[in-house]
Amino acid sequence: MVFAEAGTGVLHRVSGVIAQHQGDITSVEILDNKPPASRLYFEVDLPGNPARLVEDLERLSIVMQVELVKTLDRIYGKRIIIMGGGAQVGQVAIGAISEADRHNIRGEHISVDTIPLVGEQPLADAVRAVARLPRVKALVLAGSLMGGEIETAVREVRQTGLLVISLNMAGSVPEAADLVVTDPVQAGVMAVMAVADTAKFTVERLKRKVF
Amino acid sequence: MVFAEAGTGVLHRVSGVIAQHQGDITSVEILDNKPPASRLYFEVDLPGNPARLVEDLERLSIVMQVELVKTLDRIYGKRIIIMGGGAQVGQVAIGAISEADRHNIRGEHISVDTIPLVGEQPLADAVRAVARLPRVKALVLAGSLMGGEIETAVREVRQTGLLVISLNMAGSVPEAADLVVTDPVQAGVMAVMAVADTAKFTVERLKRKVF
Repeated sequence: MVFAEAGTGVLHRVSGVIAQHQGDITSVEILDNKPPASRLYFEVDLPGNPARLVEDLERLSIVMQVELVKTLDRIYGKRIIIMGGGAQVGQVAIGAISEADRHNIRGEHISVDTIPLVGEQPLADAVRAVARLPRVKALVLAGSLMGGEIETAVREVRQTGLLVISLNMAGSVPEAADLVVTDPVQAGVMAVMAVADTAKFTVERLKRKVF
Repeated sequence: MVFAEAGTGVLHRVSGVIAQHQGDITSVEILDNKPPASRLYFEVDLPGNPARLVEDLERLSIVMQVELVKTLDRIYGKRIIIMGGGAQVGQVAIGAISEADRHNIRGEHISVDTIPLVGEQPLADAVRAVARLPRVKALVLAGSLMGGEIETAVREVRQTGLLVISLNMAGSVPEAADLVVTDPVQAGVMAVMAVADTAKFTVERLKRKVF
C-alpha cells in the first residue's frame, strides 16, 4: 500500500520503481486520488526482498509512506457475480452464499457479488463489464425476461472463458448460457460448485444443460 | 482497455503515455497478466481528445490494441460488503439486494457484495481489506459472535470514513459499529438506505444506534 501525493504521473513513477526491481505487478487499485493525497494498492510478484522495494519507493519525493499488507486475492478470492431483478438475485444469492460458506470453511476463498438492475442496455453493459472486473469466475443471470443485446453480451463474455448460468426464463439468454437452472437457489449453489476446487462438479461433464 | 504484451514494466510504460497527455488515472485493473498477453483497464480524467491518447498508446511496441469502453464506476457504482456466517450473510443480502433494486430503478448504482467467512483472524483480515477495495461505502458484519481482533479492525476501517453496521450479536463488535440492527433483512435495507442518494436516511441524524 503506497501513500503518495495525488496528481498525474504518480502511478507512472511508482510503477517505474517496481519495474526497476523486476517486480511483476499482478494487481493494482487506486483507492483515493483526491488532492492532496492518493492511496495505491499493488500486488507484486517480486524476485528479491520486499523491504528493499519499500525503501526505494519511500525515496520517491511524491511518496509519503509504504506498508506491506495481505493480498486481496488471498482474502476475497474467486468472485461470482449475480445480476438481474432484485427478487430473483436475492434468491440466487441465498443459494450461492450458503454454498460458498461450506467451501470457504474447507479452505476455499469465494465471494458472491450482486447487482440488481433493470433494462436491456444497462444489463448488457453490466454483462460486458464483468470481463473488466478482477477475479470473476462465473456470472448468474437472474430474471424473468432477458434477450436481444444481453444475449449478444453473454456470448461475448463466454469467449473470455467466463462460465454463464441463466435462470430458466423468457427471452434468448438461456440459449446463450452454459447452463440453465429453474430454481434460483440451485442456480446459486451450482455456480459456486462449478468454481470451487473443493467441489466435485464439472459443467463440461454434465449430460444435460437445463435443470 | 489496453491489450499488451505481458511482463514487467508494461504498466509503467502505458501509464507514462497517459501522464504525457496529462491524464489523471482514477481507476486501474490488471485483468490478465499471463504471458504472452496482458489486459489492462484504465479510467482516465483527460483534458484532451481520447482518440489522440488511444493513438499514442497504440504506438507503443508492447501494445497490440486499445479500446474505449464504459466505466465500471458508472455500471457497478457504490458497493456494500456483507461478511460473516453464511446463514446470516444470506438474509442481510436479501434485504440489501431488494432495497438496492428499488434505488437502482430510480437511477442509483449500488451493488451488494458478500463473503461468507469463519474465524477471528480471517474476518479481521477481511474487514481491514475492505479499505483496499474500490468504491466501498458500507460494511455489514453478519454473525452471532464477533470480537477481539475483529473489533480492532472495525475501529480502524471506520477511521477511513466507512460506515459499519453490525447485527445485534455476542462479542464486542456491536460496540464498535456505527449502527446495530437485530433483524438481518433490516440491516441490509438500512445499509443501502444509508449510502443511496435517492433515500432520505442519515445515520448521524438517528436518535438511537441500536434497532
